[in-house]
Amino acid sequence: MRLLIVSTSTVFGKPYLSYLQEECIDFFAPGKNILFLPFARPGGISHDQYTAKAKAVFQQWGFNMRGAHEFDSASHGCDWADGFFVGGGNTFVLAESLRSSGYFERIDKDVRQGKPYMGTSAGCNMAGISICTTNDMPIAYPSSFDAFSWVPFNLNPHYLDPVDGIEHMGETRETRIKEFHEFNTQPVIGLREGSWIRVEENSVVLHGDSTARIFLPNQEAFESQILPESVL
Amino acid sequence: MRLLIVSTSTVFGKPYLSYLQEECIDFFAPGKNILFLPFARPGGISHDQYTAKAKAVFQQWGFNMRGAHEFDSASHGCDWADGFFVGGGNTFVLAESLRSSGYFERIDKDVRQGKPYMGTSAGCNMAGISICTTNDMPIAYPSSFDAFSWVPFNLNPHYLDPVDGIEHMGETRETRIKEFHEFNTQPVIGLREGSWIRVEENSVVLHGDSTARIFLPNQEAFESQILPESVL
Repeated sequence: MRLLIVSTSTVFGKPYLSYLQEECIDFFAPGKNILFLPFARPGGISHDQYTAKAKAVFQQWGFNMRGAHEFDSASHGCDWADGFFVGGGNTFVLAESLRSSGYFERIDKDVRQGKPYMGTSAGCNMAGISICTTNDMPIAYPSSFDAFSWVPFNLNPHYLDPVDGIEHMGETRETRIKEFHEFNTQPVIGLREGSWIRVEENSVVLHGDSTARIFLPNQEAFESQILPESVL
Repeated sequence: MRLLIVSTSTVFGKPYLSYLQEECIDFFAPGKNILFLPFARPGGISHDQYTAKAKAVFQQWGFNMRGAHEFDSASHGCDWADGFFVGGGNTFVLAESLRSSGYFERIDKDVRQGKPYMGTSAGCNMAGISICTTNDMPIAYPSSFDAFSWVPFNLNPHYLDPVDGIEHMGETRETRIKEFHEFNTQPVIGLREGSWIRVEENSVVLHGDSTARIFLPNQEAFESQILPESVL
């Protein structure tokens, strides 16, 4: 499988996707037609608006882009596509829409057969085992929390370190992921902004300027510059 | 109905529940037997451990407390109870356990018939229309996101104001709730730590030192020292 699992589409102070230009052009090189899945609808933006935003960037990079909602079925959309880009937004809305539109099953099949998949933020969560380590508010009810399970771990995008001296009694991100491990066993990779994972067949490589935070059940979390054997 | 809808059990620097002592003793005065629902299991703590923690406080205040899990059925637990306290933790774990244990339906019936209910944090979310404005990670899959709907709004406990100057590209709490309103219509009350709502028959009163942040669809959020007509 070929995957680009990306923490965030946008890093502070730079235009949408711009820091990923080189990587995306290389990753999607085998085919020109990229299907955009706008289903996560950040801020409630429409499918058309969101597709236009991604398309402006991908066209500039020399690709053809269409929105999944422009096709009358998931089959037709996927037949057209040489690759997939699932944009960020709300993970619950995304999971619900991917399933109700029929795209979930068909994308899963195509990606397992070799079509490249890039997912940012909510789209990053979908590459893992479940969406149970999303940071999003559960504003829609999906028929399942299962994700594509293309990699043997869960993702936590936009991973944030605890902030010292905060008096707020809510949980830190690390506390939440530890709690996840009281009820689930898969490894979790905390992927900081500006980081991404590129999967090519059997190679799984962490990119970007930051280390990843690795969470395993019944162990202290730790930093790693590579993805260790224990998560693969 | 008689409800105590509480943002947090613990305010910074004070023992568990201590800031609520006077209010709790007054609220639960009509009956001595308080059933504790430990199902939200903060940090994965066991039902026994969590019940012991709440019981230590309630016994000191002169109440009898037992854990819901100590009874062989929801009916027996609720028959014993003069009132309910649903502790905080993970809202998804709570919702799943309340439903699978049979407590959801029976507590709903008893509270609608007048038994007092106090919920903190995750237990606070359950008093509203749905759990869709929880801050928690979805670490368990409940059969529904519907909550008890005893009040005509949703709650966001531990409400946090945006922090200026943060470069992180994740959403602020306010952004998340605005996004909720792209897909849902009920009002949302952002309840800051140290705040609670007491419901007595037709009176719904905000208590504590902070204003509440009120979110209505298609409107700017605003601060209020009372719960305005528009949410009731």
